[in-house]
Amino acid sequence: MTKPEGPDAIVAAAATAHRVWSRVARATRADGLAAVADALDAAADELIEVARAETHLAEARLRGELARTTFQLRLFGDVLRDGGYLDVRVDHADPDWGMGPRPDLRRTSQAVGPVIVYAASNFPFAFSVAGGDTASALAAGASVIVKAHAGHPELSRRTARVVVDALRGAGAPEGVFALVEGREDGIRILRDPRVKAGSFTGSIPGGRALFDIAVSRPDPIPFFGELGSVNPVFVTEAAARTRGADIARDAMASVTLGSGQFCTKPGVLLVPEGSAIVESLRGAPLPEGQRMLNDRIHDGYVGALQDLRSHDAVEVIAEGDDPLGPAPSPTVLLTTLEALTAHRDELFQECFGPTVLVATYRAETDLVGFARGIEGQLTATIAGEEDDEIVPALVDELREKAGRLLWNQWPTGVSVTFAQQHGGPYPATTAPGATSVGTAAIARFLRPVAFQGFPQALLPDEVAENPGAALVRRVDGAVELRD
Amino acid sequence: MTKPEGPDAIVAAAATAHRVWSRVARATRADGLAAVADALDAAADELIEVARAETHLAEARLRGELARTTFQLRLFGDVLRDGGYLDVRVDHADPDWGMGPRPDLRRTSQAVGPVIVYAASNFPFAFSVAGGDTASALAAGASVIVKAHAGHPELSRRTARVVVDALRGAGAPEGVFALVEGREDGIRILRDPRVKAGSFTGSIPGGRALFDIAVSRPDPIPFFGELGSVNPVFVTEAAARTRGADIARDAMASVTLGSGQFCTKPGVLLVPEGSAIVESLRGAPLPEGQRMLNDRIHDGYVGALQDLRSHDAVEVIAEGDDPLGPAPSPTVLLTTLEALTAHRDELFQECFGPTVLVATYRAETDLVGFARGIEGQLTATIAGEEDDEIVPALVDELREKAGRLLWNQWPTGVSVTFAQQHGGPYPATTAPGATSVGTAAIARFLRPVAFQGFPQALLPDEVAENPGAALVRRVDGAVELRD
Repeated sequence: MTKPEGPDAIVAAAATAHRVWSRVARATRADGLAAVADALDAAADELIEVARAETHLAEARLRGELARTTFQLRLFGDVLRDGGYLDVRVDHADPDWGMGPRPDLRRTSQAVGPVIVYAASNFPFAFSVAGGDTASALAAGASVIVKAHAGHPELSRRTARVVVDALRGAGAPEGVFALVEGREDGIRILRDPRVKAGSFTGSIPGGRALFDIAVSRPDPIPFFGELGSVNPVFVTEAAARTRGADIARDAMASVTLGSGQFCTKPGVLLVPEGSAIVESLRGAPLPEGQRMLNDRIHDGYVGALQDLRSHDAVEVIAEGDDPLGPAPSPTVLLTTLEALTAHRDELFQECFGPTVLVATYRAETDLVGFARGIEGQLTATIAGEEDDEIVPALVDELREKAGRLLWNQWPTGVSVTFAQQHGGPYPATTAPGATSVGTAAIARFLRPVAFQGFPQALLPDEVAENPGAALVRRVDGAVELRD
Repeated sequence: MTKPEGPDAIVAAAATAHRVWSRVARATRADGLAAVADALDAAADELIEVARAETHLAEARLRGELARTTFQLRLFGDVLRDGGYLDVRVDHADPDWGMGPRPDLRRTSQAVGPVIVYAASNFPFAFSVAGGDTASALAAGASVIVKAHAGHPELSRRTARVVVDALRGAGAPEGVFALVEGREDGIRILRDPRVKAGSFTGSIPGGRALFDIAVSRPDPIPFFGELGSVNPVFVTEAAARTRGADIARDAMASVTLGSGQFCTKPGVLLVPEGSAIVESLRGAPLPEGQRMLNDRIHDGYVGALQDLRSHDAVEVIAEGDDPLGPAPSPTVLLTTLEALTAHRDELFQECFGPTVLVATYRAETDLVGFARGIEGQLTATIAGEEDDEIVPALVDELREKAGRLLWNQWPTGVSVTFAQQHGGPYPATTAPGATSVGTAAIARFLRPVAFQGFPQALLPDEVAENPGAALVRRVDGAVELRD
C-alpha cells in the first residue's frame, strides 16, 4: 500500500474502500478483524516496548490492554457471524395489514460510510489506533481513518502499519484503514463531505469542539464523543458502618489504578459524616506516584488538583511525598456535601489523575437530591446494603444520569461484553443512545435501509427469503433463528 | 387536568411524569396507547370535520389517515408487549471470559426523558399531535410535549384534548402529554435542560434551525428531524420501452396524490431520451387541482414552481387550467439529465406540490454517475427489469443515498410496519441512523443503561433472572425467548 499523500487522497481512498468493504460477506470482515488481532499479538513485544517508552505505563498493564484489544477485535468477529446486529426485519406483503395492504419490505443495516476516529491517550491500544472504535467501525463495514493521538506517535504509526498489513493480507480493499496525524488534518477530514461519522474519546473541551464541527457542517453527521465523567460513588450509612475500612481501601485501589487516568475513575466519594471511611483515608498509606501519560495530562492534572486543594471548602487529608511532582503521588481531599452542592461547578468536576474528593453527608436522604442535580455520567456507583431504605430512590435517580450503575463494585475496568454500556447523557458523551464499549458499539456506524418490492436476486443476502449465511432476524414481526 | 400556564410549568410536569411513565410496566403503557387509539376512533367524526375545514383534505383521505394513526398507536402496544425493542442483554459473571473475569452486567433501554415533537402540516393526524412521533415516544416511556403546527390549530387542540383525557382515563400521570402553540414556546422548550430529545417533520430550513438549537445547547440533545427529499425515480431503457405508458400514468398518480404534499412525492423522473414516457406525459389529461394545505405551503409551492418554469433548461410539457392558482392543477416539466446535473442546486430540489420534473438521459450508464452525486433521500425508486445490466450498479449507488429503495413501486404511501425505514442521510433527515415511521421509530427515544453486580430485587424486570413479563432478549450472547 503506497501511503496516500494528504488527507484528500486518504479520504478518497476510504470512500472507495467503503464501497467494497461494506459489501463483502460478514464472515470476510470477521476474518479481516481476526487477521488484525493475530498480527497485533505477533507484534506484541515490539509494540509494548514502544508503548512503554511513550506512555510510562507498566508492561503488565500494557500486555493486559493489548490482550483486551485483540479479544475485542475477535469478539466483533463473533458479532458479525451472528448477524443480529443488523436488526434485519422482513415483512412479507400482506393485503390484510391493519392500516391497508402492506408491500413487501425488507430492512437491514449497512455501514454509514467512512468514519474518522480520534484516538485517546490513556489507552494506547484499546482506545487508540486498533481500539474499540476502529474494531466496531471496521466490523460495521465502514472504512476508518484514525487521527493519531500526539501522546504516542510512534506507537500509533507502528500499530497502523500492523493493521494495514494485516488487512491487506486478508484481502481487504486498499484504503479501508489509514492513519493521519496532526490537528489540522484531523479537522479537515471531519469536514470532508465523504466522511459520514466521527468518534472520539477524550476531554470535554476537545470533544465538544469536534462535535460542534461535525454538527455544523452543511451536511451534519453523527459524532460519538466520549468526553468526561466524575463517576460518583454513593456510600450508604449501613455500608459505611459495616465495611467502611474495606470501602476506603477498595475506593483508593480504584482511584489510583493506572494513576487515575481512566474515564471511569471514581472522582467523588459520598460518605456519611463521622464514618470510619474518612478516618481510614486520613493519613492512610498510599501507593507510590507514577509518571503520567504525557506532559499535557500531567499539567492538566496538577492545575486541576491545585485548584481543588486551594478551595476554601476542601481539606487535604492524605497525600504521598510528592502530590504535584513529575510522578504525582495520590491525594485524598475532603469536603462536605453542602459545599459540593454549593460549589458544584468547581468541585464536582473530572480531575484526571490519582485523586478523589470525599464528601460527607449528614442525612442519607440528601443523596437523592444531590443525584438529581448532577450532569450526565459514564458510571454511578452505590456501595450499599440491599435493604437500605434509600437505595431504590437512589437507583431511580442515578439511572437517569449514568450509562452504567454499579452495586458494590468499582467502575474502573470496563469489560468488553454483550451487555456493556459505556456512555451516558452529556457531558459523559455527545450521543446518549450509544456505547463505545461492548458489542453494541457497532450500532454507531450503521444506518438502516429498506428494500421495497425487490426481486430476490437483487436483495442483500440477509434480507433474502433464504439467506446463505447464519442469522437472527425478524420475519413478519417474529424472531427467526437461521443456522 | 388543569392546563399548566406556560412552557416552564409544562416542562416541569413532563419531567415529573416521565419518572412515572417510564417506570410503569410495558403492558400499562400499551394500554394507555390503546386508550388513546380508542378515544380517537370515537371522536373521529368531530375531528375529521375540523380537519377538513383546516386542511382542505378530502374526507376519505382523512378517514384513512386517522385509521393509520390509531393502527400505529396499537402497533406500538404490540411492540411494548414483545419487549424486543429494549435490546436487553444479560451477561452473567464469567471468570473465564476471554479478556479477564467478567462481572454480571445487564443492559436494558429506558426513555431518554421528556421529548418535544414538532408536528407536521401535511398529515394532520398521522404526523401531528397523536402521530408517529408521539406514539413512539409515549411507547418508549417518554413524556411528550407537542408543538402544534399552525396549519391546523383547532384540530391540534381537539386532538390534544382527546389524548389527554384518554391517557388520564388510563391512569397515566398528569403532564405526560401536553400541547403548546407558537414558535417562541416551541423554541423555549427545546432549550430547556429538562427536555432530552426533539423530533420534527417539515422543511429543510425549519428543521435545520431547530437542529442547530438542539445541538448548540450547553448540553446538546438528539434531534430527529425529517426534512426534505426529492425522491428520484430511475426508469431504465427496457422498462420505458416495455411499459412506458403505464409508468407515465402511475408516476402521475403518485406525483398528484394529495396534491403532491407528501415528503415521499417523486419529484424527479429520469427517463430515456425519446422514450414513450415523455410523449405520454406531454399534454396528458391531468387531475383537477386541489386546494393546498395552507397559504404558506401554497405560496412556497407557487414560488418554487415559478422558479422551475422560468429556468432556461426547463420546458412545461403538461399543465392543467390553473397551475399557479389557489387550487393548483398539476404541472409536468421537462429537462435533460445534463441540465439537471449542471444546475443541480436549482433543479434537483424538493418542490412540495403537484409537479414533477422529467429529465431525459442519453446513456443508461449516466444514471449511476448521477446517483453518485445526489444528496441524502428518503426514497429512491427504480423502474426496471430484473435483467437490466445497469440495475446492480444503480442499487449499489442508491443504497448509499436513500433510506428506502423501491422496485417498480411508488414511494408515496408509507406503510407502518416492522421493516419500514423512513429516513436517510442529510438533508432527508438529521439522524441517518433513525426512522420516523415503523416500529423501529421507538429507538429514537431510548437510551441504554447497564446494571453491574446488582441484586435481583433491585433490577428492572426485563433484566432480572426470571422476568415477569414476556420478552425477547440475549443472555450471554444467545437469543432467549420468554413467554
